[in-house]
Order: sequence, then C-alpha cells, then structure tokens
Amino acid sequence: MDSWENTESWEKLLSGENCPMCNDIHLKENKHSFLIKELKYSFVRLPKNQFDFGWVILAFKNHAVELYDLSPEELSGFMSEVSMVAKAVSEEFNAVKIYYSIFGALCPHLHMHIIPKYVSSDPHGAVELNNGFAELSLEEYERIITSLANRLSE
Amino acid sequence: MDSWENTESWEKLLSGENCPMCNDIHLKENKHSFLIKELKYSFVRLPKNQFDFGWVILAFKNHAVELYDLSPEELSGFMSEVSMVAKAVSEEFNAVKIYYSIFGALCPHLHMHIIPKYVSSDPHGAVELNNGFAELSLEEYERIITSLANRLSE
Repeated sequence: MDSWENTESWEKLLSGENCPMCNDIHLKENKHSFLIKELKYSFVRLPKNQFDFGWVILAFKNHAVELYDLSPEELSGFMSEVSMVAKAVSEEFNAVKIYYSIFGALCPHLHMHIIPKYVSSDPHGAVELNNGFAELSLEEYERIITSLANRLSE
Repeated sequence: MDSWENTESWEKLLSGENCPMCNDIHLKENKHSFLIKELKYSFVRLPKNQFDFGWVILAFKNHAVELYDLSPEELSGFMSEVSMVAKAVSEEFNAVKIYYSIFGALCPHLHMHIIPKYVSSDPHGAVELNNGFAELSLEEYERIITSLANRLSE
C-alpha cells in the first residue's frame, strides 16, 4: 500500500480523495474491522486483528488528518470520546496501562488506536500493530462488541 | 527499570509516589531532555535522544496516568496544547505526517510523544523510541529549542 513515499497518491489521501476510511469506516463490517458504536464525533471499531488483544480504534467521522486540522470543539469532543473508550477498554480487559496512538502512515484519515497492556505484555517492546495476526471466532468478536457497546451506553 | 512487571513499584508509580517525572519534568535540563516551554497544562520538552529527529514530548504538569483521569477541562486544555505543539513541530521540521503517542510503560506519568515523519521515514516501521541514540551538539539543541519556543509564543 502506498504511503508518503508516493507524493501524488499521498497528497490525494491527505485531501480525502478516494480515502479508504471515508468509504467504509461507518459500515457494520469492513475488510479490517467491526463497528462497535457510533458516537458524535467518531466511529468506535474493533479490528479483526486481535493479536494485541483488546485493540480498538476511534475513527474521526469527517475527513481530517492531523489533530490541528480539527476545530477546538471537534478536538475536545473527539478526545472526550477517546478518553471514554479508553476507560471502557481498560475495565473490559483489566489492563495495567492504555497506549494511545495516532499514526496514519498507510491511511492518514484521523484515527486513534487504543491498545490495552497487561501484566504479561512486554513493557520494552516496540509498538507495531502488525506484529502478528490473531483472528477470533465470530462469537468472540460479537461478545466483545456487545460488551463494549453496553459500557459505552452507560 | 521496573514497569508493571513489578506490581509493588508499579502501584507506587501510578499513585505518583517517587514519580521521576514529577521530580524533574519542570527543570531546564534533566537527564533525558531539555525544557522548550512551559504551557498552562504541560511542559514541552526536547528529548536529548534525537534519533527520531524532531521528537518532542508534552508532559502533563500534575501527576496523572490515563487520559480519563483528567477533568474535562484538563483534557481539553492538554490536547489543545498537544495540537498546537504538533503544528509547530510539523512546520519546524517540514514533516509529512505527525505521530502522536502516549505509552508510559517505564514512567506512567501522562506524557504525549510528538514524532514527525519524513518522506525518508519508513511508513511500515514499528514505533520504538529507543531504536537508537542520536545526540546533537549543544548548539543544535539550543537552535531547535529557541525556534520551537518562538513558534509557540506566536
């Protein structure tokens, strides 16, 4: 997949032209993830790759790239949702720490990764979201989605 | 350095007891970094390790661990400063993308990493802040600190 190495396609991705996330981030299921809940500013999604168990993303609803592209109200609203989801993830999975990251090298559409860490996690490890691939059963995805959605509705 | 692997010392770090960042995050220079600017909610600092060239951190002034430990006003204020600093870093270093991360495995005191990426950066690479160590000259640190501080005063 292209990134900033290809200036022409990167400029298009930045501008939102043919942005893959704009196309499918609202769907109940897309190639990479399931919808957990639609909030005011973001879609909360569960990546199919649960190698980092409990990994959740919040994708900003409108096309934006950097935090400083948001209005003060959007920034505050989006981060309030990030904070609420991080708390729900921490409680759901009994995490010792939450990692929060915005990368966007492959798709710069603004999205925050919420990654719970456990006593068994390596605290010295690099953060690499494609370290491995762990697929769960459909029942297990559904259980997590339902439980997190319920926590976010409280 | 201990992390969550040692429950007793981790609990102390979470509570702020002997928190290394509370002790030295306000200093003009500490073991790891230089102060760029004091803002309302955060200290903006330049790590001495500039292996990721342009790496800057914002440390929350008071002791806190997770984003959801902050009041709505603190969260909004802190993230507004993160956004402003990210913009300054992007412009200073002519970045193609900004990475934003809160980890805290070694010191859970809330701090955000701002890491500029360049056309020459590997978009598929893991995020590892200790991939290598690059020390700059004192003159080069000072040039960056002055230039960023000026941008943040505009």
